[in-house]
Amino acid sequence: MEGLIMDYPLTTTTILEYGNSAFKHKKIISHLPNGSRHEYTFGDLHKRCKQLANVLTHKLGVTKGDMIGTFAWNHYQHVELYYGIPSVGAICHTINIRLSSHQTEFIINHSEDKVIFVDASLVPLLEKIAGQLETVEHYVIMNAPEKFSTTLLNVLHYEDLLEGESEEFEWPTLSENDACGMCYTSGTTGLPKGVLYTHRSTYLHALTISTPNAANYDNSDIVLLIVPQFHVMAWGYPYLCLITGSDMVLPSSNLQPEAIISILQEEKITKANGVPTIWMGVYEAMKKNPPRPKLALQEYLVGGSALTASLIKGMDDDFGIKGVQAWGMTETSPLGTVSRLQPHHEKLSTEEKIKIRAKQGIEFPGIEMRVVDNNGKVAERDGKTMGELQVKGAWVIKSYFKTNNRDNFTDDGWFRTGDVSTVDSDGYMHITDRTKDLIKSGGEWISSVALESALMSHPKVKEAAVIAIPDEKWAERPLAVIVLTDEDEVVLDANFKEFLSRDFANYQIPDNYVFVNQVPRTSVGKFDKKEIRRLYAQGEL
Amino acid sequence: MEGLIMDYPLTTTTILEYGNSAFKHKKIISHLPNGSRHEYTFGDLHKRCKQLANVLTHKLGVTKGDMIGTFAWNHYQHVELYYGIPSVGAICHTINIRLSSHQTEFIINHSEDKVIFVDASLVPLLEKIAGQLETVEHYVIMNAPEKFSTTLLNVLHYEDLLEGESEEFEWPTLSENDACGMCYTSGTTGLPKGVLYTHRSTYLHALTISTPNAANYDNSDIVLLIVPQFHVMAWGYPYLCLITGSDMVLPSSNLQPEAIISILQEEKITKANGVPTIWMGVYEAMKKNPPRPKLALQEYLVGGSALTASLIKGMDDDFGIKGVQAWGMTETSPLGTVSRLQPHHEKLSTEEKIKIRAKQGIEFPGIEMRVVDNNGKVAERDGKTMGELQVKGAWVIKSYFKTNNRDNFTDDGWFRTGDVSTVDSDGYMHITDRTKDLIKSGGEWISSVALESALMSHPKVKEAAVIAIPDEKWAERPLAVIVLTDEDEVVLDANFKEFLSRDFANYQIPDNYVFVNQVPRTSVGKFDKKEIRRLYAQGEL
Repeated sequence: MEGLIMDYPLTTTTILEYGNSAFKHKKIISHLPNGSRHEYTFGDLHKRCKQLANVLTHKLGVTKGDMIGTFAWNHYQHVELYYGIPSVGAICHTINIRLSSHQTEFIINHSEDKVIFVDASLVPLLEKIAGQLETVEHYVIMNAPEKFSTTLLNVLHYEDLLEGESEEFEWPTLSENDACGMCYTSGTTGLPKGVLYTHRSTYLHALTISTPNAANYDNSDIVLLIVPQFHVMAWGYPYLCLITGSDMVLPSSNLQPEAIISILQEEKITKANGVPTIWMGVYEAMKKNPPRPKLALQEYLVGGSALTASLIKGMDDDFGIKGVQAWGMTETSPLGTVSRLQPHHEKLSTEEKIKIRAKQGIEFPGIEMRVVDNNGKVAERDGKTMGELQVKGAWVIKSYFKTNNRDNFTDDGWFRTGDVSTVDSDGYMHITDRTKDLIKSGGEWISSVALESALMSHPKVKEAAVIAIPDEKWAERPLAVIVLTDEDEVVLDANFKEFLSRDFANYQIPDNYVFVNQVPRTSVGKFDKKEIRRLYAQGEL
Repeated sequence: MEGLIMDYPLTTTTILEYGNSAFKHKKIISHLPNGSRHEYTFGDLHKRCKQLANVLTHKLGVTKGDMIGTFAWNHYQHVELYYGIPSVGAICHTINIRLSSHQTEFIINHSEDKVIFVDASLVPLLEKIAGQLETVEHYVIMNAPEKFSTTLLNVLHYEDLLEGESEEFEWPTLSENDACGMCYTSGTTGLPKGVLYTHRSTYLHALTISTPNAANYDNSDIVLLIVPQFHVMAWGYPYLCLITGSDMVLPSSNLQPEAIISILQEEKITKANGVPTIWMGVYEAMKKNPPRPKLALQEYLVGGSALTASLIKGMDDDFGIKGVQAWGMTETSPLGTVSRLQPHHEKLSTEEKIKIRAKQGIEFPGIEMRVVDNNGKVAERDGKTMGELQVKGAWVIKSYFKTNNRDNFTDDGWFRTGDVSTVDSDGYMHITDRTKDLIKSGGEWISSVALESALMSHPKVKEAAVIAIPDEKWAERPLAVIVLTDEDEVVLDANFKEFLSRDFANYQIPDNYVFVNQVPRTSVGKFDKKEIRRLYAQGEL
């Protein structure tokens, strides 16, 4: 028997309307690339989204299901696009500005973007490939300086389009299963793959992330959105903040540690997000030059790669600012788990507590996770048994855009993350590796991530990446690629072997060490293992 | 274009599974009617729900869509029914134990309950009407004392049924729009009406209520569920606590102020809910006998009727415990709004802050509200313009059970609450009256609630209810029904008239005052205006 409750689709439009009704006076503050500061309210955003909806439908001919690209930093116009595009039934496709020209061209043609909204400062990146773009009818420029010229054709200007447009627009009725946003994976293993979010998944993700066990935002928070809006919908934060009535601060391209610290101070930020690299930079800059007065920042939520125990401890001890580890992927909207201590952890030592906080944590309601071992069985939750992490839930993809490839899905409908994990008896998940980064030596698994963590705790090591190299006898052996703190120093391999022997079995310890000036990284700042393998694994030692 | 996200129905079963996965060790503590204390974990609940599912399907012949009644206090078995019944696709119909025999009989026959799970201590109430119950095949007795006998036929015992049952049960696939629970309104204006909740509405209501702007629960909270499980699904708390990992404490029939205070102390409760009458009693008892050591209680969430400014202030000042006003109805699952201060209120005086906290507040995401004036127009949000409060949203009914009557719905699909409200420029809603309690005198509206509040602030008044009485000249005039603090004292009408003249226009001030020993109340503790009218409005002065 069906219940007798109203049909009320969960859409990004309902979030926009909610922000306008409940928190009309709340602020969106943008630090623009040109150094200026822009401030307006949720009420203003609502009006401008209605203007944008008129522009999209009447001036640009956008109709339901059209793919609309954005190629921009974090700022209020980009937030308007996050709401305005889906509200007319089109799809907001946020293009990663850090991909190669080849990848960018592929993504735009593959997604069939009809219009691209682009920051003036990023126009040169598109000019290079414009000749190859097959579907783009208009480029709409944002934040253009007075003197602006481009070789792009069919160029319009964002503010010109909005100016004088009506603030009245009747939202079309949408299904909550309609697509509202698209992101491509960063494609470390082949071509980027498209992930198509629904209105419903976007709403449920944002609402759930706001809860106290998760990111814990309310109307007294002032949130700095460091995660770029061109990465996985900025972790849903532009939606989240309208739900929670939190002031939203957008740094656009000001992502150097000093710029971030200055915004943290000036705007009295209480919560922020970002990848560990950013926070490591902020921490080091603050160590050199401690902010006065004390920052209002209480917490920074980290995802993308692992928050290290040393960063957690440093920020705790030196500044009283809490690092919170989350985990997710483009395919999971992205957030799926978070690690926070619970009352029964109170009796643990500081070190043990940090060990738990450095795990990826427990799943959010709406997400299910399991670890499947080599034999296809669900692993015990003993904190030891490793296997592939698989997830399902209300904001996890069921397939990639325009492909029937089912490699990433199990027969019973779970998404295969490619992460190798354990789950402990408290339900805390811990990623030990990527499946493709595991080294299988003489029939035994060796964790490259565990070796990297250990090596990076060596006083003379700045960075360390570990990959598998082919070996006739053992099939694979680990190779360590190392950046020393002092480039001119010489450290013997034996030194590292002895250091590692405290925590690792002999067969797990790399035989070979390569010293480099920097470890190649992907567009999102992770070690680029594909490139490292290309450079070092095929006998180029 | 549809997005490519998994189909993941939001059901109470997913909540049960989530609680078991993420918070297996969290506690459910019951203070049973016989004085004993029972404690187990979310993991135990999960196992017992699987046993219950086997009992329902294999021993009681329950199938999808069956209506299953509960007639019980707040305790763990009742929580098992909240999850176990919907998880097999049946509907958990919580019957209000405080209704009249006639109403109870009507509700059970109207809903067609197939089985009723009943606390032994409440069996006598059912014995009276059992002969008239047309659909009940089994009565399942909970918490029976050793010597127990009943005139009910087809009696089974809950623990006997569960004992030895398998803890394995494969949950059936459910649609999130399937009915999962039913409550009847308390029927102050005619027969009770059935409200049929969906799995989806129950999930979204509970998840949203957990957010920081709303009730704000996390895994460090120990929550006392004072609101009876036979009232509007206990405000969703048995679902909410599994989502948030909060320990849940259930007082069953221990609802006297001293019993509640003792549980608050013993269990180190951090948050609780309840109607104002309960909290007024607790406050008065604590004033007489302040708890030592200080309670861990931080907040009590109040709904059902208005939290008075004096109770907010008393609990603030004397005990540092925050009263939070929420608003809702059976038809809205129930919670729709809550009043919490925001940072821009900080500059206000204590008195002004309490005025805001005594409003019903801003709507939750997922709920929309509007006030429609006499002319059918949406009222300005000026804090003054009154009209009928109308709502829609993801957990608001679209019709009552087994009726096509559309009186409570507008043509454009909003639910008419029957409350008269204002909304201020900050978006805070304030209920000034029930539509049927407004007094229209000489073409002007007089608010009975405003008069009641004013009269109750008179030092010699304990309680005051105001109703309309017919008047030849003015159509209606207000009549005040008063309980004096000191029953033996005589207070002249003129005294009240002068007192009210400070805040009210002459035409608004009641001409007549009736002094009584108590004001008639409904089964849920509100003034029973229907009864007051019957007693006093028709010339019985």
